[in-house]
Amino acid sequence: MNKNMLIAQSGGPTAVINASLAGAIKAAQESGKVGTIYGAIHGIEGILKDRIIDAGKYFSTAEDFEKLIRTPSMALGSCRFKLSKTVDENYQKIVEILTKYEIGYFLYIGGNDSMDTVDKLSTFIEKSGLEVKCIGIPKTIDNDLVVTDHTPGFPSAARYVANSMAEIYADTCVYDRPMVTVVEIMGRNAGWLTASSIMARRSCCPIPQLIYLPEIPFDFDSFEEDIKEAAKEHTSIVVAVSEGIKFKSGEYVTEAKKTEYDSFGHAALSGVGRYLGDFVKEKFGYKTRVIEFSLLQRAASHLTSYRDVEEARICGEKAVEYALDGMNRVMVSMKRVSSDPYLIEYEPVNVSEIANKEKQIPMEWIKSNGHELTDEFIEYVRPLIADEEGGIVPDFFLFDKTDCIVK
Amino acid sequence: MNKNMLIAQSGGPTAVINASLAGAIKAAQESGKVGTIYGAIHGIEGILKDRIIDAGKYFSTAEDFEKLIRTPSMALGSCRFKLSKTVDENYQKIVEILTKYEIGYFLYIGGNDSMDTVDKLSTFIEKSGLEVKCIGIPKTIDNDLVVTDHTPGFPSAARYVANSMAEIYADTCVYDRPMVTVVEIMGRNAGWLTASSIMARRSCCPIPQLIYLPEIPFDFDSFEEDIKEAAKEHTSIVVAVSEGIKFKSGEYVTEAKKTEYDSFGHAALSGVGRYLGDFVKEKFGYKTRVIEFSLLQRAASHLTSYRDVEEARICGEKAVEYALDGMNRVMVSMKRVSSDPYLIEYEPVNVSEIANKEKQIPMEWIKSNGHELTDEFIEYVRPLIADEEGGIVPDFFLFDKTDCIVK
Repeated sequence: MNKNMLIAQSGGPTAVINASLAGAIKAAQESGKVGTIYGAIHGIEGILKDRIIDAGKYFSTAEDFEKLIRTPSMALGSCRFKLSKTVDENYQKIVEILTKYEIGYFLYIGGNDSMDTVDKLSTFIEKSGLEVKCIGIPKTIDNDLVVTDHTPGFPSAARYVANSMAEIYADTCVYDRPMVTVVEIMGRNAGWLTASSIMARRSCCPIPQLIYLPEIPFDFDSFEEDIKEAAKEHTSIVVAVSEGIKFKSGEYVTEAKKTEYDSFGHAALSGVGRYLGDFVKEKFGYKTRVIEFSLLQRAASHLTSYRDVEEARICGEKAVEYALDGMNRVMVSMKRVSSDPYLIEYEPVNVSEIANKEKQIPMEWIKSNGHELTDEFIEYVRPLIADEEGGIVPDFFLFDKTDCIVK
Repeated sequence: MNKNMLIAQSGGPTAVINASLAGAIKAAQESGKVGTIYGAIHGIEGILKDRIIDAGKYFSTAEDFEKLIRTPSMALGSCRFKLSKTVDENYQKIVEILTKYEIGYFLYIGGNDSMDTVDKLSTFIEKSGLEVKCIGIPKTIDNDLVVTDHTPGFPSAARYVANSMAEIYADTCVYDRPMVTVVEIMGRNAGWLTASSIMARRSCCPIPQLIYLPEIPFDFDSFEEDIKEAAKEHTSIVVAVSEGIKFKSGEYVTEAKKTEYDSFGHAALSGVGRYLGDFVKEKFGYKTRVIEFSLLQRAASHLTSYRDVEEARICGEKAVEYALDGMNRVMVSMKRVSSDPYLIEYEPVNVSEIANKEKQIPMEWIKSNGHELTDEFIEYVRPLIADEEGGIVPDFFLFDKTDCIVK
């Protein structure tokens, strides 16, 4: 008799994580080698609470799958649960559930915390004498998983960021007076998504002029100088800042902000974007505006990258393939064969190589001024977020200050 | 010899204001009755500073026009300039420029302030003995112009709001704990755009549960009750709030916030969304998140309503038609003949009927609980933001808490 499969999703949402779910369910159905395809509601928490549903039964027609693929975030719900380092009663409880539902394959879609879960859990399952193949499917808008070329979810978020930045410039360049717009973008320790804002740049859209990443220590003196320099050339200055920028000491800039509550009068809850915006206003007196992309950047199903959707779906398929091939404790990884033409190969990687590591932007892809990216970075991101015709952001038709048209 | 035409744009950006510019330039070119088509850089300010360009020469191919139509915000730049009530030297300066460039037709694209400008200016021009037909082209995401059924720019902004709200729900519903998300939406005195967030609602997307509009006096006691009620049924509560909500006294809630700086510890600069979010956190202890759509809601060229783009373009065409027909001091207005099938007729309306008035949501379209909209409102907005197949927001495929699928 065919063994059953259990799938769960974990961590922060992306716009394409359900495409991986769809790919896995479809591949399992079509293999003819999988019994019931179960889903755990709210990830590992759902397993611990025995909130297991027959997910496969909801999907039969192409339309069912299409709808799931278009749904951002997690259709099965998520959790932020991390298994303890040492084996505790939760491990035993999970094994009980896996036994109860006669699970032979466990697929977990998530980031590096989830890969850690796959790693620990599969080790314990093996020791328990149970035969369950555990496979990880990558996802995170942060793009911070090691080994894999990139992570599903990142390209769509990057596309949203690049597009929205260009639109923000079109909005902020219309008035004839200096203005600084600070845009806060997700990424606690890796600046991939914030850096992708540079994809908005073209001749008629010179922004963002300044990009601040967690990879490069931040200080307000340099920031002041950077603004001063940018203001010599531009009326509308757009700053992209990662929520995770840090001082040289390693302290998050947002943390410092809290301690400076009294002198600056900032509320503890607002973010680093507001902090920088207030600084500019105080120092330069310019009109400032602060924008946080917030949840919009990771849930924007209307602006996904078509390649991202496709790759996320294939990652789901590959996970089923690996499981049925008898592999265990591996994650589906993507290897870039070439950027032009864009070509990706999928391969299994041991999850222990991924878990608890973070991939930052290579220092050689950040320009020496610390606030721009090199052509290598641009060539890395371009194929991920391009549309089917190769376009990245809408091509604008703006009249510039010298009263000539900028093509 | 054919007289020349001058076009300018004013006020806050929208995603489709350049479609009106494109429609006007094309109609003027095709009429064969217009000489040079000039554009003023930065609206009335550009006229006063003699920053006039030959805009027509940049547009000849279909591709030129397509690119302009896809460009959000104002390709000619904008201003926030208001002519003084009494005639001053600026009036005379404008007449000099109109004379210098042999302008016979002046088209101004803007909101009610701009219609006021058209009104005052055309009166002065007439008195000066000059023959210049002044025509207004409506635009504003606020949808607050009287007479016209709606204003170009509003449908696209509403579509952005409805889509983004649905995506926010998909993101916030994944965790198994109470969460309140407050979304702040533009609209100082009219709640049209905030109210449009209700278009996100479907069986699998019960949000926004609470909508607060400038039309209905706000008070924190009712707000607390509303949250309490919503929390009985929902884990993820999404609140849509207009930046312009007011207390019964007429005072803006944001203003009150500033005065309560010390007791609540909020920064003066952050908005009403943050205020409500902090209130919920303090009263209920729920996880809260505050999102401001900010500039994104009015510049989202990637999520325009196709009807809005088309109507904005036609408004530009009609303005040229009216001007060449010898009309003066009128704005292009839209009259809804029917909602299903959707049918609009265009007609000239005297700008004095529009200037300095604000259209709010009719009270009978707001439910008696003060935080929901009636079916009449929904039927009014639906055809404006629907896509070509009639869909409004992505159809989701979410598993709900009772472990059954919600279609």
